[in-house]
Amino acid sequence: MPDGSIIIAGETRQTAERFRATDAATGEPIDQTYSQAGAEDVRDACALAERAAPAFAALDPEARAGFLEAMAEEILALGDELVAMAMVESGLPRARLEGERGRTVGQLRLFAGELRRGEWLDVTIDPALPDRAPPRADLRRMNQPLGPVAVFGASNFPLAFSVAGGDTASALAAGCPVIVKGHPAHPGTGELVARAITAAVAARGLPAGVFSYLPGPAPALGAALVADPRIKAVGFTGSRAGGLALARIAAERPEPIPVYAEMSAVNPVVILPQALAARAERLGAEFVGSLTLGAGQFCTNPGLVLLIEGEGCTRFKTAAAQALAATQPHAMLTPAIHGAFSAGVAALDASPDVTRIASGPTPATPNQGCGALFETSAARFLANPALGEEVFGASSLLVICADLGELAQVIAGLEGQLTATIHHDEADAAAAAQLLPGLARKAGRVLANGWPTGVEVCHAMVHGGPFPATTDPRTSSVGTLAMARFLRPVCYQDIAAGLLPAALQDDNPWSLPRTVNGVRERPA
Amino acid sequence: MPDGSIIIAGETRQTAERFRATDAATGEPIDQTYSQAGAEDVRDACALAERAAPAFAALDPEARAGFLEAMAEEILALGDELVAMAMVESGLPRARLEGERGRTVGQLRLFAGELRRGEWLDVTIDPALPDRAPPRADLRRMNQPLGPVAVFGASNFPLAFSVAGGDTASALAAGCPVIVKGHPAHPGTGELVARAITAAVAARGLPAGVFSYLPGPAPALGAALVADPRIKAVGFTGSRAGGLALARIAAERPEPIPVYAEMSAVNPVVILPQALAARAERLGAEFVGSLTLGAGQFCTNPGLVLLIEGEGCTRFKTAAAQALAATQPHAMLTPAIHGAFSAGVAALDASPDVTRIASGPTPATPNQGCGALFETSAARFLANPALGEEVFGASSLLVICADLGELAQVIAGLEGQLTATIHHDEADAAAAAQLLPGLARKAGRVLANGWPTGVEVCHAMVHGGPFPATTDPRTSSVGTLAMARFLRPVCYQDIAAGLLPAALQDDNPWSLPRTVNGVRERPA
Repeated sequence: MPDGSIIIAGETRQTAERFRATDAATGEPIDQTYSQAGAEDVRDACALAERAAPAFAALDPEARAGFLEAMAEEILALGDELVAMAMVESGLPRARLEGERGRTVGQLRLFAGELRRGEWLDVTIDPALPDRAPPRADLRRMNQPLGPVAVFGASNFPLAFSVAGGDTASALAAGCPVIVKGHPAHPGTGELVARAITAAVAARGLPAGVFSYLPGPAPALGAALVADPRIKAVGFTGSRAGGLALARIAAERPEPIPVYAEMSAVNPVVILPQALAARAERLGAEFVGSLTLGAGQFCTNPGLVLLIEGEGCTRFKTAAAQALAATQPHAMLTPAIHGAFSAGVAALDASPDVTRIASGPTPATPNQGCGALFETSAARFLANPALGEEVFGASSLLVICADLGELAQVIAGLEGQLTATIHHDEADAAAAAQLLPGLARKAGRVLANGWPTGVEVCHAMVHGGPFPATTDPRTSSVGTLAMARFLRPVCYQDIAAGLLPAALQDDNPWSLPRTVNGVRERPA
Repeated sequence: MPDGSIIIAGETRQTAERFRATDAATGEPIDQTYSQAGAEDVRDACALAERAAPAFAALDPEARAGFLEAMAEEILALGDELVAMAMVESGLPRARLEGERGRTVGQLRLFAGELRRGEWLDVTIDPALPDRAPPRADLRRMNQPLGPVAVFGASNFPLAFSVAGGDTASALAAGCPVIVKGHPAHPGTGELVARAITAAVAARGLPAGVFSYLPGPAPALGAALVADPRIKAVGFTGSRAGGLALARIAAERPEPIPVYAEMSAVNPVVILPQALAARAERLGAEFVGSLTLGAGQFCTNPGLVLLIEGEGCTRFKTAAAQALAATQPHAMLTPAIHGAFSAGVAALDASPDVTRIASGPTPATPNQGCGALFETSAARFLANPALGEEVFGASSLLVICADLGELAQVIAGLEGQLTATIHHDEADAAAAAQLLPGLARKAGRVLANGWPTGVEVCHAMVHGGPFPATTDPRTSSVGTLAMARFLRPVCYQDIAAGLLPAALQDDNPWSLPRTVNGVRERPA
């Protein structure tokens, strides 16, 4: 059972300043109180992370892979207590949380495999050319970790994007000590996972400063963590306001550092006329399924649908309205998220530029969200950029366009997105071909004839995209690409064989793939 | 001959506001006047770059490689006029500028080869798993260009880090249109090269907006360029103040963008006792050779030398002082750089914490710099961080440490650097092994028993490093790695074969290396 502890490099602490979580289903506070971490805790955790960094960076890939696998085992060993705690704190159903635990454990193992694969080091060797005029030195490049990383978990994935989520897994895989700022919405879940990671650190004999856990709702906690000079990068999943605030703190440090904030998106879905003609009813129902999944609390939730007016469009709207009315209401993650959702929907209801065309069932409890579907014209959408802002939850806006040209104009005016979707039939192929490059310019992932919710953890995934979807479009927060966020290249020139890092030695003791004289070589 | 034109997407313009370059040798203004580009020129160039971007991004690697090679040919076709112009404007000698031209042309060809090699696209395919529960979609990832890039050339490399320098070459290779803010110190050289690039754009039938050239000294020009919403990334080589100013503008845009500013470094050189004992005289002479090369106007100039007190240290100082006195004075690049150098040296002379121990010969003309060598103790250096700031030019500071522990302490306190050097003998190996990881944490390149000046353009090079050496330690501005700065990944999910970009198609029409299910495959 969690006891409300802060965990700093293996040691637990209790503080006088306490906070509580809320039972998402009832909106009532839960009895257990938790320690709010403070400035001294930040300083201590950062000092110990900095001290642990060199030894952790120097571990061979197998040792770090074993540590990630031990983390996975320790998380599974928490058993049902973890799932039960997360259910109460998040209001998410058992099946979803069991799946999320599988994903959390799976991504730790994926990074373990990635460590062994060795591509992440990007070993590149240009051997000396002593006879060239002028001679070329021996030049060997590899990636090395940036240093201690601060991770800010998200409320909507209490396991997969939180204490042992993708940011933590990829930063640890890269060889960076991690300090997690625990999300106050699920402190019990967070502490359980933090204890599991702490156990794995100890079991593998790693320096304890490799991991610390600092929970609490106080904004000053996160600000102090990002401002600490020993922190070298930040991973964040959450609101645009939160991400931008951390990015500002990071940019204003004497030494600015990268912030990987995955923030907000409306994930436009384009549905072309022939697809609508062929299956408007199915598309309407599927759309509502994606929109209301997890009470709409996904960063990839389809919050904007672009359609061309006509009979198919009308059929789609009817089908979506029916499907939305038939959904079950679900508790939202926290009263604050529920409040923000309700305010966002109310603002759309009050806007003269949009019309509500469908609603979910009336909530049965105070913390449940009521799904909402709105409609506007392309002209009004183009004239009122605020309509393109995310309402986090099951709210979506249909933008009805006169023709393909107007639809392309709406796409061109969009902000950066995590995803962009296009539904098309064979007869829409020319239009799809015309729109696809524009969609790819706006998003980190483009998909066809599917729905954006559901993010596979794999090598090819990009969960990222141009601002304001993220603060850094050059990367992904999901999948193996995420590891590169916490690495930087270092070139070793004419370093004696005995002083070279193992990864760069001629006899390749770690059996790494290498690029030698511009040619990729696989290990024997 | 240059006629003082701005070049916007193939069209030349003259403006009423004019500026002149200075003959570096005499400090006198040169007759020819040049157009100062203004806000309207920025807007026009950005609009045309944005319009050209999709077609340029969609070019196959061979077409873009051919364009880079055509640029190289056009630059060579400028013949001796280019070298002669650069000599007058920069004061650099013929051999250096001919070498720099070779480097400029060579790096264009290196990127052409890199385009054909295809690794830069990082094609990664996780095929659909329809029978898995839940099924996996077909996921294909590739890199695509960020969009129009603003490039700020450096005064100290009028060819290799200027209009057609590393930033321009890597951004064009990545598929990004480039707008160069021409450096006012070498406008004639800049215009000649801009005309060569413009000719290559036309000869290859590319959209003219792929390249524009906006010269001028007005700070408002660069500010307007970085602030323009159509610019998606910035490459800069120059002063810390200049780089930080651009980074601030970029961070405050409604859509912040990455700034790759290569700014300042003192490039610490550690010389261990046994190396000193064995060859103090040679090391002293070589050090002065590196320090005074190009009048010390290199970002990798050795501005800080860390030594342990003793007889070898004394011999090194004597040898360096003799070598410095025997150097030839050289004109500096501009009166402004000469003024900043003189002021930096005067500040050190006035500091109670340092002592001048050697000087170069007295300058014969007003624009020549006088080499300067200073000495301080580790204790004073640690107490006065300002001593670690760069003085751009042939000025260096020896920091005398009591022992290895104090030397390690000085290293730990350093800011981020482009390079860190260690000279050691076999008998120093234990000390070298102890110091090397700390040096690698501070720099983008660590080198042994050599000197930091001289940056090879190749696959393994890292010309970068932690802040404030650059604004982004995750990359390099020299070598093939530089291209990645202007790319971002996009994932294509379940896109129909006929709509997939060529790079991602099953039959691999561009013969690219690919990672399929996590396994790297070479093209057949």
